[in-house]
Amino acid sequence: MRFTKLGKKQSNVGLAPGTLVHVGEKKAERIVISLWAYNSEELIEKELQTVEECLAFKDKPGMNLWVNVDGLDQIEVIEKLGSYFKIHPLTLEDVLNTGQRPKMEDYDSYIYTVLKMMLLDTEKEEILIDQVSIIIGPGYILSFQEREGDVFDPLRERLKNPNSRLRKAGVDYLAYGLIDAVIDNYFLILEHFGEKLEYLEDELVRDPNPSTLKTVQKYKRDMILLRKSVWPLRELISGLQKVESELIKETTQIYLRDLYDHTIQVIDSIEAFRDILSSMVDVYLSSISNRMNDIMKVLTIIATIFIPLTFVAGVYGMNFDYMPELRWRLGYPAVMLSMALIGIIMFLYFKKRRWV
Amino acid sequence: MRFTKLGKKQSNVGLAPGTLVHVGEKKAERIVISLWAYNSEELIEKELQTVEECLAFKDKPGMNLWVNVDGLDQIEVIEKLGSYFKIHPLTLEDVLNTGQRPKMEDYDSYIYTVLKMMLLDTEKEEILIDQVSIIIGPGYILSFQEREGDVFDPLRERLKNPNSRLRKAGVDYLAYGLIDAVIDNYFLILEHFGEKLEYLEDELVRDPNPSTLKTVQKYKRDMILLRKSVWPLRELISGLQKVESELIKETTQIYLRDLYDHTIQVIDSIEAFRDILSSMVDVYLSSISNRMNDIMKVLTIIATIFIPLTFVAGVYGMNFDYMPELRWRLGYPAVMLSMALIGIIMFLYFKKRRWV
Amino acid sequence: MRFTKLGKKQSNVGLAPGTLVHVGEKKAERIVISLWAYNSEELIEKELQTVEECLAFKDKPGMNLWVNVDGLDQIEVIEKLGSYFKIHPLTLEDVLNTGQRPKMEDYDSYIYTVLKMMLLDTEKEEILIDQVSIIIGPGYILSFQEREGDVFDPLRERLKNPNSRLRKAGVDYLAYGLIDAVIDNYFLILEHFGEKLEYLEDELVRDPNPSTLKTVQKYKRDMILLRKSVWPLRELISGLQKVESELIKETTQIYLRDLYDHTIQVIDSIEAFRDILSSMVDVYLSSISNRMNDIMKVLTIIATIFIPLTFVAGVYGMNFDYMPELRWRLGYPAVMLSMALIGIIMFLYFKKRRWV
Amino acid sequence: MRFTKLGKKQSNVGLAPGTLVHVGEKKAERIVISLWAYNSEELIEKELQTVEECLAFKDKPGMNLWVNVDGLDQIEVIEKLGSYFKIHPLTLEDVLNTGQRPKMEDYDSYIYTVLKMMLLDTEKEEILIDQVSIIIGPGYILSFQEREGDVFDPLRERLKNPNSRLRKAGVDYLAYGLIDAVIDNYFLILEHFGEKLEYLEDELVRDPNPSTLKTVQKYKRDMILLRKSVWPLRELISGLQKVESELIKETTQIYLRDLYDHTIQVIDSIEAFRDILSSMVDVYLSSISNRMNDIMKVLTIIATIFIPLTFVAGVYGMNFDYMPELRWRLGYPAVMLSMALIGIIMFLYFKKRRWV
Amino acid sequence: MRFTKLGKKQSNVGLAPGTLVHVGEKKAERIVISLWAYNSEELIEKELQTVEECLAFKDKPGMNLWVNVDGLDQIEVIEKLGSYFKIHPLTLEDVLNTGQRPKMEDYDSYIYTVLKMMLLDTEKEEILIDQVSIIIGPGYILSFQEREGDVFDPLRERLKNPNSRLRKAGVDYLAYGLIDAVIDNYFLILEHFGEKLEYLEDELVRDPNPSTLKTVQKYKRDMILLRKSVWPLRELISGLQKVESELIKETTQIYLRDLYDHTIQVIDSIEAFRDILSSMVDVYLSSISNRMNDIMKVLTIIATIFIPLTFVAGVYGMNFDYMPELRWRLGYPAVMLSMALIGIIMFLYFKKRRWV
Ligand SMILES: [Mg+2]
Ligand SMILES: [Mg+2]
Ligand SMILES: [Mg+2]
Ligand SMILES: [Mg+2]
Ligand SMILES: [Mg+2]
Ligand SMILES: [Mg+2]
Ligand SMILES: [Mg+2]
Ligand SMILES: [Mg+2]
Ligand SMILES: [Mg+2]
Ligand SMILES: [Mg+2]
Ligand SMILES: [Mg+2]
Ligand SMILES: [Mg+2]
Ligand SMILES: [Mg+2]
Ligand SMILES: [Mg+2]
Ligand SMILES: [Mg+2]
Ligand SMILES: [Mg+2]
Ligand SMILES: [Mg+2]
Ligand SMILES: [Mg+2]
Ligand SMILES: [Mg+2]
Ligand SMILES: [Mg+2]
Ligand SMILES: [Mg+2]
Ligand SMILES: [Mg+2]
Ligand SMILES: [Mg+2]
Ligand SMILES: [Mg+2]
Ligand SMILES: [Mg+2]
Ligand SMILES: [Mg+2]
Ligand SMILES: [Mg+2]
Ligand SMILES: [Mg+2]
Ligand SMILES: [Mg+2]
Ligand SMILES: [Mg+2]
Ligand SMILES: [Mg+2]
Repeated sequence: MRFTKLGKKQSNVGLAPGTLVHVGEKKAERIVISLWAYNSEELIEKELQTVEECLAFKDKPGMNLWVNVDGLDQIEVIEKLGSYFKIHPLTLEDVLNTGQRPKMEDYDSYIYTVLKMMLLDTEKEEILIDQVSIIIGPGYILSFQEREGDVFDPLRERLKNPNSRLRKAGVDYLAYGLIDAVIDNYFLILEHFGEKLEYLEDELVRDPNPSTLKTVQKYKRDMILLRKSVWPLRELISGLQKVESELIKETTQIYLRDLYDHTIQVIDSIEAFRDILSSMVDVYLSSISNRMNDIMKVLTIIATIFIPLTFVAGVYGMNFDYMPELRWRLGYPAVMLSMALIGIIMFLYFKKRRWV
Repeated sequence: MRFTKLGKKQSNVGLAPGTLVHVGEKKAERIVISLWAYNSEELIEKELQTVEECLAFKDKPGMNLWVNVDGLDQIEVIEKLGSYFKIHPLTLEDVLNTGQRPKMEDYDSYIYTVLKMMLLDTEKEEILIDQVSIIIGPGYILSFQEREGDVFDPLRERLKNPNSRLRKAGVDYLAYGLIDAVIDNYFLILEHFGEKLEYLEDELVRDPNPSTLKTVQKYKRDMILLRKSVWPLRELISGLQKVESELIKETTQIYLRDLYDHTIQVIDSIEAFRDILSSMVDVYLSSISNRMNDIMKVLTIIATIFIPLTFVAGVYGMNFDYMPELRWRLGYPAVMLSMALIGIIMFLYFKKRRWV
Repeated sequence: MRFTKLGKKQSNVGLAPGTLVHVGEKKAERIVISLWAYNSEELIEKELQTVEECLAFKDKPGMNLWVNVDGLDQIEVIEKLGSYFKIHPLTLEDVLNTGQRPKMEDYDSYIYTVLKMMLLDTEKEEILIDQVSIIIGPGYILSFQEREGDVFDPLRERLKNPNSRLRKAGVDYLAYGLIDAVIDNYFLILEHFGEKLEYLEDELVRDPNPSTLKTVQKYKRDMILLRKSVWPLRELISGLQKVESELIKETTQIYLRDLYDHTIQVIDSIEAFRDILSSMVDVYLSSISNRMNDIMKVLTIIATIFIPLTFVAGVYGMNFDYMPELRWRLGYPAVMLSMALIGIIMFLYFKKRRWV
Repeated sequence: MRFTKLGKKQSNVGLAPGTLVHVGEKKAERIVISLWAYNSEELIEKELQTVEECLAFKDKPGMNLWVNVDGLDQIEVIEKLGSYFKIHPLTLEDVLNTGQRPKMEDYDSYIYTVLKMMLLDTEKEEILIDQVSIIIGPGYILSFQEREGDVFDPLRERLKNPNSRLRKAGVDYLAYGLIDAVIDNYFLILEHFGEKLEYLEDELVRDPNPSTLKTVQKYKRDMILLRKSVWPLRELISGLQKVESELIKETTQIYLRDLYDHTIQVIDSIEAFRDILSSMVDVYLSSISNRMNDIMKVLTIIATIFIPLTFVAGVYGMNFDYMPELRWRLGYPAVMLSMALIGIIMFLYFKKRRWV
Repeated sequence: MRFTKLGKKQSNVGLAPGTLVHVGEKKAERIVISLWAYNSEELIEKELQTVEECLAFKDKPGMNLWVNVDGLDQIEVIEKLGSYFKIHPLTLEDVLNTGQRPKMEDYDSYIYTVLKMMLLDTEKEEILIDQVSIIIGPGYILSFQEREGDVFDPLRERLKNPNSRLRKAGVDYLAYGLIDAVIDNYFLILEHFGEKLEYLEDELVRDPNPSTLKTVQKYKRDMILLRKSVWPLRELISGLQKVESELIKETTQIYLRDLYDHTIQVIDSIEAFRDILSSMVDVYLSSISNRMNDIMKVLTIIATIFIPLTFVAGVYGMNFDYMPELRWRLGYPAVMLSMALIGIIMFLYFKKRRWV
């Protein structure tokens, strides 16, 4: 299931470019459309029943519009929304295809960005990935998610506050806010990994076992996948910084720079985790082999000490008629003593050579 | 057979540049030339018997021409076609030489692109590689393949639909369509690999055996070869995007950008597969060595416990005349008991040190 | 504790950008604000009780002002200072968030730089990291540290000397001096590591043991973390060199170039240490396995020599009625001699094949 | 012999730059100078006895001159030729010093290129390397080789054909032809390596032995050395493409692009071979260790089964006076049966745990 | 001693930039100042007793001045020289601090370059490193070394020859000559390493032992350190080529290009040595493990054959009253024969499975 997702995009192979098909796992049954229209004075928040309802709020001067769609299965809804806002079919195709690499594309009349929201399901110890598409148009933001539930609630709270910068600024600042919320959440994920790694490191010292290694390998693979989502963010954000478009205002630039900085921090942490995980494998392997060596050494030494002694016993177990020692009164204790001596000398020799 | 293909191009060594020789495996006996002439109103589809037949359709204003050649063995046919369309000998040499690296070259009067079509033969579990050359001229496309059978059938279907974008747009959009079909097919291949990798990973956990490793190594090498075909596509497509030529229209640019994006997705997946395969080798090696260690440990412990006991038995097998214990009524059970005790103590000691 | 710091920034997730929260470990209970106002004639040094006191020294023409804050816990103090000097909330957020990557940002009216001061606690063998933020404004420097104690004392001494370049130059030279002091200190840290590595290398030759490897791994990880703090310094300093701002004077450029050079030296040393540490792991592993091999070889040879001898003894311990050798007068010595011969021959054979 | 060549250039250490000394192995005793003067009408081919003879053909308008020198030992000859054609002493020094890295240098009045010709000696399984220097001047080409024998014979044939492009074009096209011949030959070498690798891979599966590994290592090193000769060719050719000089005509550019493409193909193959060789080492090591493990496992299991049985036999070999079992009529068969049972149970247990 | 040098620069930590302290090992007790003043007609060579003596030769039109200082311990001498020639304190600091990374810095009135001279002490098998600073001013060169003895003697010889290019050209050509002499000497070092590697490789095949590996590791580390000195030379020389300064004349450019080329050759050789050394480690490890495997295999097989035989002997050593075989006339020879058969069959089986 996991690896097949790397080779995704299958179901629309052979279709004309811009043919709309939802490619990816079905994550939501129904589709939820919520609308926020706001300026510094007013705020209208509404859950839409039909796409048409949003037309009333479109192109209202001085009013910012944010339409968020949760669920990608009702293609006709997304198609309709696309036609109202004049979104290019290639953009809609990308919105519906959840195997996108994070990117930013300038379509002149709007800017399209797509990125991966990561939600930590702390119970199941799983990371849920939800592709978020953000379309930044003049006076409006369209956002699309694969299913309900996101990391934008704090942002919605701030939006309700009439004194917040969000309410006063344009939709480009809202777009910044959405991306910022997604990236901020990466820090939570990384912190979670950080704790796991500390625990793992402890385990590596205390009691390294095959399952420890399995966990390390699992985290390494998680990092490969996480990395795939985060590295392209650099380009995405610097794309937004460099784009020559009136959709991104000068005053938002300083916030984008901050965002870029956070992305680099996330990347740095991922790279550091990777390095640390790699060295954990080395620690594991060497401590396993140390332990195995210790066992084998002790056991081999026991065997080695007793083998010559058993030989001696074997010699005096031979049935020759003429073995004078066997007739001696003190033959038995003498042999026992000799054997004890041989054993002790061997042991001391091993000790001296630091084998024990 | 495989590796020699890496050091290809042999048979025309020493020939003048532009001398036409088919270099590569013979994959087709006969040559099939099919012609499609179309505009938004009309569509002519025809299988040509002689190259000359296509001259009737050449340079017809308002008509797009697509000539596809399957099979590279009849050099005179390709030479003739080349002379009709004024193709440079160096281009024809590349068409015939199937060891090309994907590339795009601007010859001013036309653009030459060459790439690798990959066809998954699901029965034989083999990937067939077919070099596709596409020449984009004013009003015409020439395409060359090594043998019949390709991934262009859905495109041909769309071409039959008079309302499709393909019929309305120029040949540059057709060229885009051809390249897009090839790249879309890579996703199918990658999906196939994705499934194989999942199965392999299962096997690595359940029952790792040398053949598992052999498969991993095979896939690693497949990835090396796949990578060689895909990496240069980036350059090819960005070459098409940047080329200063009237052959690529402004309106096609947006589709090329989409193509570029898909290429990056393919590359990303290949790199991720490579990373995953590498870590699979590590998992394999460590699980094999874990298993070996477990076996050796148990066996060594059994041996180690019995060696001292055998020594004791050896001692009482000695034939000394004066060994008082041998005369004791309870000598035998006492010794047996002692040996049992020694064995149990050793076992418990090993247990305590977590060796068992 | 360590790894979680890589995934930092958690506590202000979801807050509006520019909301001030101290993110990181609390390293100081109280906050200490010290003020230095100076020019070539005059020097005023003062520990401030309230932030307001510094207003008297602000914007005094011909006077350079340096305000240093130790401790980040009293947010209101930092907020007030920020508002007096018109510092952007995003800057203050970075000052308070101690998970910053070293960087330099031009805010037009001031330049913000942040870097990591490293203090070697030679007693505890620990490196204390203290994030230092330096704000270079017109005629003033604001610096923020996480706790009291820094590497700036020699600089403060030089500042007291009225003939020093520091007193005569502007605040950009003071900023250079602060950064230089931080980087100079890295050399001390590296020298410390150099000594440790020499000692380790000795140990690797004399007596390699698991704890040696553990130390190597620890140093490797230290280098990963150190590297994270130092690599971005290159960009920071070349940013200062290239910035188009009147805040950095032409005459300071030559000193920045020197600083850049030192940074490269630090990076080079870190990379060399990393290479050396990597090869130490190889040396360790091979010397451990050499040693293990030596032990196993000797022990196995002892066992191998005695096993056939024990067999011979076993043969003459059989109780067959008709074993003529047993009745021979010289049977016993003959057998003993044969066994000695077998042992010697085997030993010589092993010797010849260089197994012993 | 091999590695010292990496640290070459020794004998002219300390000499003034431009002092002419032949540095490298003496590969030829005598020196052979051949002259080709040609245009589309005429062709003069001549072996020169003295350098002076070529002066007659120098600076003849409408005539292309190619002087090829085989053998570098008669320094005065090369010096004279250099002075006639006004070649800079630094160029001549490079011609004579056979440790050159392939490169292209523009001396304004001529262009100097140096590259490595590789000749496969199929009998001795050796690759002979011959440094070729090509000086492209106005109307003339000077080429220098270390010894007789080269890959230019097909080119000489084409030169004899008055209708060939070579005869009609200028000396820049001849220079292209020379470099092309050298690079084409790399394909032969790579094909040879390809075959060797296939054979090796077979051997790795059939019967891996230390000599297989030795061959893999040898090929890896060959690739390191081959790579050193080929990588710089990219720069060399793109240098020729970008050089602003009238010596390279516009019409030759398209051929240089083709050359560049071939170079990339060679590099790609070398890199792929390197990757394949690396993974062969892994395959070898794991199959060797698999085999060793199989042996050790079987042997250890045999030993482990018999050790407890031998103990039992030892017990009943003890000489206690009171051992009731020894007196039982069926003691012997009972013990034998028990031992058989123990052996079988142990074997089945091992079987069940999949150790056998 | 070695590694601490990587973390150098310690003793002037905390000092003002430009404060002169000799940082590094004391390599010379006394200081030797030699002066060469020359033009194409005249040459004055003199060992100075006081720094002041050189003032007489300074700023003499048409006269080139070279002052070389061996030994860095008398800071006042260097300070004085610095003040006479108006050298920036930061330059003098770098001259005195022997932990410099090779670099080139343009101070407008002069160019400062610093590089590492390597002297091979063939007796002690040691490489002595001596930091050489070269200051190229108008009409003068100042050079500083850590101690007497250098690689400039051939250059001094050429300087005595009135017809040499050195005498006729300016000081920039002398600077080139000095750097060239240093780099030429690297070839000698590399040649020395090349010979050592050949010897090592022989040893790896003939008789691999732990000390072979130790030597390989030592050379690997030597290469890491050598690399650190050589890589930055590329930048140094291309800096000299690109510098916009009248101090480097147009005619010297061609010689700098040659120098650049040599540097690349040195780097290439170092990289090739590194690759070869890495693969030597692999060869060593695999041949050691091959050998160990061979030993263990033979020994284990001997043990495995005798263990069942010993068991049989043990069976007939049991003291049961009723063991009919013991009473048979041919029991003994029959058992001996059986045991011989068992041994031979086992041996043949092992042989067949290619374990012996
Ligand atoms: Mg970073
Ligand atoms: Mg990074
Ligand atoms: Mg990275
Ligand atoms: Mg990294
Ligand atoms: Mg990196
Ligand atoms: Mg690695
Ligand atoms: Mg990517
Ligand atoms: Mg990638
Ligand atoms: Mg990667
Ligand atoms: Mg890559
Ligand atoms: Mg990558
Ligand atoms: Mg460096
Ligand atoms: Mg570096
Ligand atoms: Mg690095
Ligand atoms: Mg490095
Ligand atoms: Mg480095
Ligand atoms: Mg290279
Ligand atoms: Mg390529
Ligand atoms: Mg490549
Ligand atoms: Mg490469
Ligand atoms: Mg590659
Ligand atoms: Mg590569
Ligand atoms: Mg790779
Ligand atoms: Mg490097
Ligand atoms: Mg080179
Ligand atoms: Mg190189
Ligand atoms: Mg290289
Ligand atoms: Mg490297
Ligand atoms: Mg390299
Ligand atoms: Mg390499
Ligand atoms: Mg490695």
